[in-house]
Amino acid sequence: MDILDIIDKKEKRETLTKEELQYVIDGYLNGSIKDYQMSALLTEIDLLGLSEEETVNLTDIMLKSGETLDLGFDNLADKHSTGGVGDKTTIVLAPLVASLGVKVAKMSGRGLGHTGGTIDKLESIKGFQTSMSLEDFKKQVDEIGLALVGQMGNLVPADKKIYALRDVTGTVDSIPLIASSIMSKKLASGAKNIVIDLKVGSGALVNNLSEAKELAHLMVKIGKENNRNIACVLTDMDEPLGNAVGNSLEVIEALNTLKGDGPEDLTNLVIKLGTLMTSMSLNISEEEAKKRIKENLYNGKGYEKMLEWVKAQGGNIKEIPLANNQKEIISKEEGYISHIDALEIGKLSRKLGAGRLSKDDNIDLSVGIVLNYKVGDYVNKGDVLATIFYNEKEITDEEFLSSYKFNKEKVEKPKLIIDIIK
Amino acid sequence: MDILDIIDKKEKRETLTKEELQYVIDGYLNGSIKDYQMSALLTEIDLLGLSEEETVNLTDIMLKSGETLDLGFDNLADKHSTGGVGDKTTIVLAPLVASLGVKVAKMSGRGLGHTGGTIDKLESIKGFQTSMSLEDFKKQVDEIGLALVGQMGNLVPADKKIYALRDVTGTVDSIPLIASSIMSKKLASGAKNIVIDLKVGSGALVNNLSEAKELAHLMVKIGKENNRNIACVLTDMDEPLGNAVGNSLEVIEALNTLKGDGPEDLTNLVIKLGTLMTSMSLNISEEEAKKRIKENLYNGKGYEKMLEWVKAQGGNIKEIPLANNQKEIISKEEGYISHIDALEIGKLSRKLGAGRLSKDDNIDLSVGIVLNYKVGDYVNKGDVLATIFYNEKEITDEEFLSSYKFNKEKVEKPKLIIDIIK
Repeated sequence: MDILDIIDKKEKRETLTKEELQYVIDGYLNGSIKDYQMSALLTEIDLLGLSEEETVNLTDIMLKSGETLDLGFDNLADKHSTGGVGDKTTIVLAPLVASLGVKVAKMSGRGLGHTGGTIDKLESIKGFQTSMSLEDFKKQVDEIGLALVGQMGNLVPADKKIYALRDVTGTVDSIPLIASSIMSKKLASGAKNIVIDLKVGSGALVNNLSEAKELAHLMVKIGKENNRNIACVLTDMDEPLGNAVGNSLEVIEALNTLKGDGPEDLTNLVIKLGTLMTSMSLNISEEEAKKRIKENLYNGKGYEKMLEWVKAQGGNIKEIPLANNQKEIISKEEGYISHIDALEIGKLSRKLGAGRLSKDDNIDLSVGIVLNYKVGDYVNKGDVLATIFYNEKEITDEEFLSSYKFNKEKVEKPKLIIDIIK
Repeated sequence: MDILDIIDKKEKRETLTKEELQYVIDGYLNGSIKDYQMSALLTEIDLLGLSEEETVNLTDIMLKSGETLDLGFDNLADKHSTGGVGDKTTIVLAPLVASLGVKVAKMSGRGLGHTGGTIDKLESIKGFQTSMSLEDFKKQVDEIGLALVGQMGNLVPADKKIYALRDVTGTVDSIPLIASSIMSKKLASGAKNIVIDLKVGSGALVNNLSEAKELAHLMVKIGKENNRNIACVLTDMDEPLGNAVGNSLEVIEALNTLKGDGPEDLTNLVIKLGTLMTSMSLNISEEEAKKRIKENLYNGKGYEKMLEWVKAQGGNIKEIPLANNQKEIISKEEGYISHIDALEIGKLSRKLGAGRLSKDDNIDLSVGIVLNYKVGDYVNKGDVLATIFYNEKEITDEEFLSSYKFNKEKVEKPKLIIDIIK
């Protein structure tokens, strides 16, 4: 076997065997297959696709390229989001389902986003620690039902190396490669119950609905082949999720949501994802799970679990820094908001300092944007559209307003949950 | 502009502008675009193709990536072969057309073939020098009408770097990339008249006739856009060309051909290619050119020019080494030969030591194979099919015979010249 034969076979649109895929992954990890050869094969896969069988096999090989975790909890649930602007869902969801007896042992990333990853967001709570030993991690899950760390063990090294290459070779948007990347990590972290929040829209990795459905079906198939309970929720990411964008602002919004006082879209999403996680993990009906989720969202038990969690990881919930300066953006138009560009809002937030362009950038956890209106809302001239929280770096009113479109006619609120595939 | 945007644009099947192609070539040469990114783009081009316009532009940019030669001769002709087993055409053709007043200033390669390149073959003549200064090169072309060197100046550095990458990423078989690689080098070497011998068949780079025609049309178009006279001859490469395979054996066959005593297929090819080169360069009809070529092939003037040439480059035509051992291969079958596998004969010749697998391999100039019969010939049991010239490394009778197929029914001699595109 030879990498050139394998590249040639894929060029001829033939199906790669599991042995050939194993040869590729082994060779790439040990350095006998070079970056430029892997890049050629990844580009072929991006253009020509992979069969379902190839994708299942690739995922299995990547999964087995490193350590896998088995924490020993049957009712362990994991949730993954493909990432969007204003996505603080995990911070609400993890304590909420944990308050119902679901175990949550989550690994999360800093990521290269317009705002930080979940880890960055949580670190805006003073003292919050996101690294701990496997033993402490397991103990915390056992005792309070949830724990979240930045990294744990050498899980899926093949994905780390391949993802870094995809990022610089224009192959991040391949559906089978996204599926194998996400699923190998989810499977390696050991949860029996998996819910994936697949964002679709201008601010998301996948912006085309048919590709999103293809990806969802593929991930569900891979999950089931590996004996996991799995559901994939397709959600709209044309406008930001919730009202807050920026690390500390998103944590504050998450806390409010856990007190039953969150934005409508975020609250509905948390209820839907929480229902699926709880139903799978506790083996109860979705109807029953939804009832319990709503109870604990409004009776304060989810919020209590959040406080317990923050304390367990060393954080002080009373100390969440906010930027020194605030500026209100006043609407110069009146009408129904027809569009708020999630991607643009994300970029503006990064411009304020909330996100990274490269891995080593420092971010300012205290800056960001809070929107007062969402798509479908009516605004008058002079209404405060949003508040900008900033320190050194600023954005202009014009930059901000160019993300908005208005309409004289009534605009329907967008449907956040597009489809559920399981 | 950003390489990821360009990769993305090609993925969307859009046409790259000349500025974008320039950005790619500049960036790859200065190192800001990495091998793995270039590999991604080359793989896209291999799978999706390039438009004629993109190919013409890419060739022009590659051509201008380094020096170009202008030796100042209007009647300068160049010939290129895409490479085949037993291809000693240049060694016959160069002195033959030079004997008619055509100027030949040829750069040639060692190459990675089953036998060496033209340079290696000529070096089997003791003392033959293939490096000289530009001044000496030009002087020799002026005085005796022809000169051949291994390398001269920094021509087309973009092709050198890209070709090395294509070789290890499975992208050597892309038609537009082959066209731009060959034509940028031919244009850079400055000849006004270009004849390309495009081999088609199992022993060649292109083994499919429709792809060969596409490549030929593309190269002719590029040549004409650059104000060159150009013709592309498609020739069969299913069986070896001529009878001899191996460096010194091929030189001896070339000398015999210049004495009017060559194999029929090689002789016919030399007449066709020589006619085109002479007609273009001297601006005479093909009929007249063909008459003159045949005259000088049979009146000894081509051979005299060969002697003059060898002497000018320091070689002694009387000292061409032959291997110490010879072994005859006896036919165990009788019938018409229906197939001699060029690729297999090439590999066996390399196994004897005549060719390289990697750039640094030493080759044995004295070894090789001489075939006594070609496809269409009738052989009896006990006839000597071929003679193997070998030193340390041997091949078995069985290995050799497995390249042959026989037929009871009469087999037509294959047509060597398939098509001429100009």
